[in-house]
Amino acid sequence: MPTISTKGKLMPESPIRKLVPFAEEAKKKGRTVYHLNIGQPDIETPQVALDAFKNFKPGVIEYSHSAGNESYRKGIAKYYKDLGIEINHSQIMVTTGGSEALLFAFMSCLDAGDEVIIPEPFYANYNGFACSSGIVVKAVTSTIETGFSLPPISEFEKQITSKTKAILICNPGNPTGYLYSKEELETLKEIAIKYDLYLFADEVYREFCYDEKKHFSVMSLSGLDEHVVLVDSISKRYSMCGARVGALVTRNKEVFSTALKFAQARLSPPTLGQVAGEAALNTPLSYFDKVNKEYSQRRDLIVSGLNRIEGVVCPNPGGAFYCIASLPVDDAENFCKWLLQDFEYQNQTVMLTPANGFYSDPALGKQEVRIAYVLKKESLEKALSCLEEALKVYPGKISSLKKSSPLFSVE
Amino acid sequence: MPTISTKGKLMPESPIRKLVPFAEEAKKKGRTVYHLNIGQPDIETPQVALDAFKNFKPGVIEYSHSAGNESYRKGIAKYYKDLGIEINHSQIMVTTGGSEALLFAFMSCLDAGDEVIIPEPFYANYNGFACSSGIVVKAVTSTIETGFSLPPISEFEKQITSKTKAILICNPGNPTGYLYSKEELETLKEIAIKYDLYLFADEVYREFCYDEKKHFSVMSLSGLDEHVVLVDSISKRYSMCGARVGALVTRNKEVFSTALKFAQARLSPPTLGQVAGEAALNTPLSYFDKVNKEYSQRRDLIVSGLNRIEGVVCPNPGGAFYCIASLPVDDAENFCKWLLQDFEYQNQTVMLTPANGFYSDPALGKQEVRIAYVLKKESLEKALSCLEEALKVYPGKISSLKKSSPLFSVE
Repeated sequence: MPTISTKGKLMPESPIRKLVPFAEEAKKKGRTVYHLNIGQPDIETPQVALDAFKNFKPGVIEYSHSAGNESYRKGIAKYYKDLGIEINHSQIMVTTGGSEALLFAFMSCLDAGDEVIIPEPFYANYNGFACSSGIVVKAVTSTIETGFSLPPISEFEKQITSKTKAILICNPGNPTGYLYSKEELETLKEIAIKYDLYLFADEVYREFCYDEKKHFSVMSLSGLDEHVVLVDSISKRYSMCGARVGALVTRNKEVFSTALKFAQARLSPPTLGQVAGEAALNTPLSYFDKVNKEYSQRRDLIVSGLNRIEGVVCPNPGGAFYCIASLPVDDAENFCKWLLQDFEYQNQTVMLTPANGFYSDPALGKQEVRIAYVLKKESLEKALSCLEEALKVYPGKISSLKKSSPLFSVE
Repeated sequence: MPTISTKGKLMPESPIRKLVPFAEEAKKKGRTVYHLNIGQPDIETPQVALDAFKNFKPGVIEYSHSAGNESYRKGIAKYYKDLGIEINHSQIMVTTGGSEALLFAFMSCLDAGDEVIIPEPFYANYNGFACSSGIVVKAVTSTIETGFSLPPISEFEKQITSKTKAILICNPGNPTGYLYSKEELETLKEIAIKYDLYLFADEVYREFCYDEKKHFSVMSLSGLDEHVVLVDSISKRYSMCGARVGALVTRNKEVFSTALKFAQARLSPPTLGQVAGEAALNTPLSYFDKVNKEYSQRRDLIVSGLNRIEGVVCPNPGGAFYCIASLPVDDAENFCKWLLQDFEYQNQTVMLTPANGFYSDPALGKQEVRIAYVLKKESLEKALSCLEEALKVYPGKISSLKKSSPLFSVE
């Protein structure tokens, strides 16, 4: 029997999805499972997008251009212009989700053995894409004590070697919800220029910023045109994860033309998703106001609820729809399994994602979980009750982090 | 300015798409261009598939399972059962086109530096996927003189080294249209077992076999369950290339679970494409009868038409909708460019794909072009006239291959 590749063996399982079989078992027992494990929003897709494929009447569902339909790319350029970002459609490549955009960026800019620096905890699948491309992730650890703010520049410089080719950030961050300030991004710019590094930024949660905070994009950093590659996606913006439509955006012509060769090999991004995505550009602004208000309320509910539970610590995220909470447990992964396998409260339980998969070193984040607040407030309240009850009876309960920082007093 | 990756530099341009700017120029001059360069069929997508997304009314366009919707996977299992192939839905992973299925197979089974043997000429993007994964393609050359039949087993054995992990075939073949016999596949089975190699088979053109010939699938080879990985796609079968839906199929559990990790990293295949794909399974058999008859007539028209032109040689393909023709020209790539830039006949011209991109060594196939007979017969006739007139006046005309083989007498 032929053997599996070493790469295939090293490829990490998704921490977001690997507990799914336990959730399925719990459901078979008749239990309600509150899914706070995955960023699959329950927010309705804008009607304009749903209408678009209903009214799409092609004779043949054809390939699009490898970089996406031109009319759509022009529409995306206008979307950026409205945000104050000057981008030509020829600098925008439509991809199969943000995932593919990041993979193309990695493959166009880094070879196997090259290094990318990422502040951790980071979106777990970055590990997967790095593994696919043979790229080495060097993490710079941000901590729950500082609310996951950008680590000092010295921490980045410690990680820089002759193999370092890029820095990757997610802003606002998955899994932390941290929103980088303009000043923090200027710091990253300095490092990128000083060491001639690419700056990759995953900004798929751009629209989800709370407390009147404004998102500042890497595309707005001056003098960094050759360094910046933006990863974007419509999955979260318009609640249409299943469309599998994203974008790679860069003013660096060589990066663009190289990424296009990878894009040509896979022929084209999905045609139906692009039809829906192009229509979604006409989503009324009122949709975002409503959605933002909803997420903001959910965040307040979940963060204050978590911090009220004895021993639980959760910084207040400035954006996206995730937070990282520290729990008074021996091992968060064991706890998450136990929640699904052995626990129920009024025939309900909750599915969380152990946060260790979001660190380069799984020993970190051992007491942390990622929570996606993508369910209605009533469900979030029930999930919080489950969690509170569970922590009363979990056999592996231990003493907690101190609530010492002002960041934790969000109530 | 940071540098591009070596991989990115080595990544080949798609030979199918790289002449597109010349075609666009020709169109700007008001010329009609007959596109025989790309396998984008003009055949209509089955109505059941078009109706499906019209009637799909989700509140939210959600991610699917990373391996695809279970109902769809069960539907695909039934599709295979109807072909006489016993496959469980748990052995079927829905992918983003056949492209992704092959990429997952490569990454799950081969590491960088490992070798895959492919009979050439082969689908050009195999080079791209190999480059993406750092895999080395070792070609076994099939020739136009034998109508592109499987090279003898000794030619495969010559290429086998300690790094060889797999053989990849496309059946029926793109770009040759060659349909492998059961005996040829049994030969490949022998090699796979003797050297413990994976056998990857791209069978996306399975339905397109002519002259009452029957397709024999690698999935029907007995005793090869651990070796076979099937790459499939609905792009050509139902003329819905833009849906971006394919499948990886294997009875090897370890390959499946490894590929699933790569699938999890990219979250899910396109939801809308899966809705259309699942409905397409109900396409009436009469659709395929009609389509097959149409392609069969187009093939007869194009192959006999080509062989009638002085100096042109084209074997008669048994399946798919491509053929490779040898032309009496100095350099097929120059000729293809010249057709678009400098030639017109009654204000029309034809776009062909130079075949050198379908060989591991671009020096091979220097006089050959790939022709996709995906246009209506009237257009094919006009395209043939253009080609005939072009060859009368092309400055780089040279003497031709002899029409010595009986394979060439298809008229």
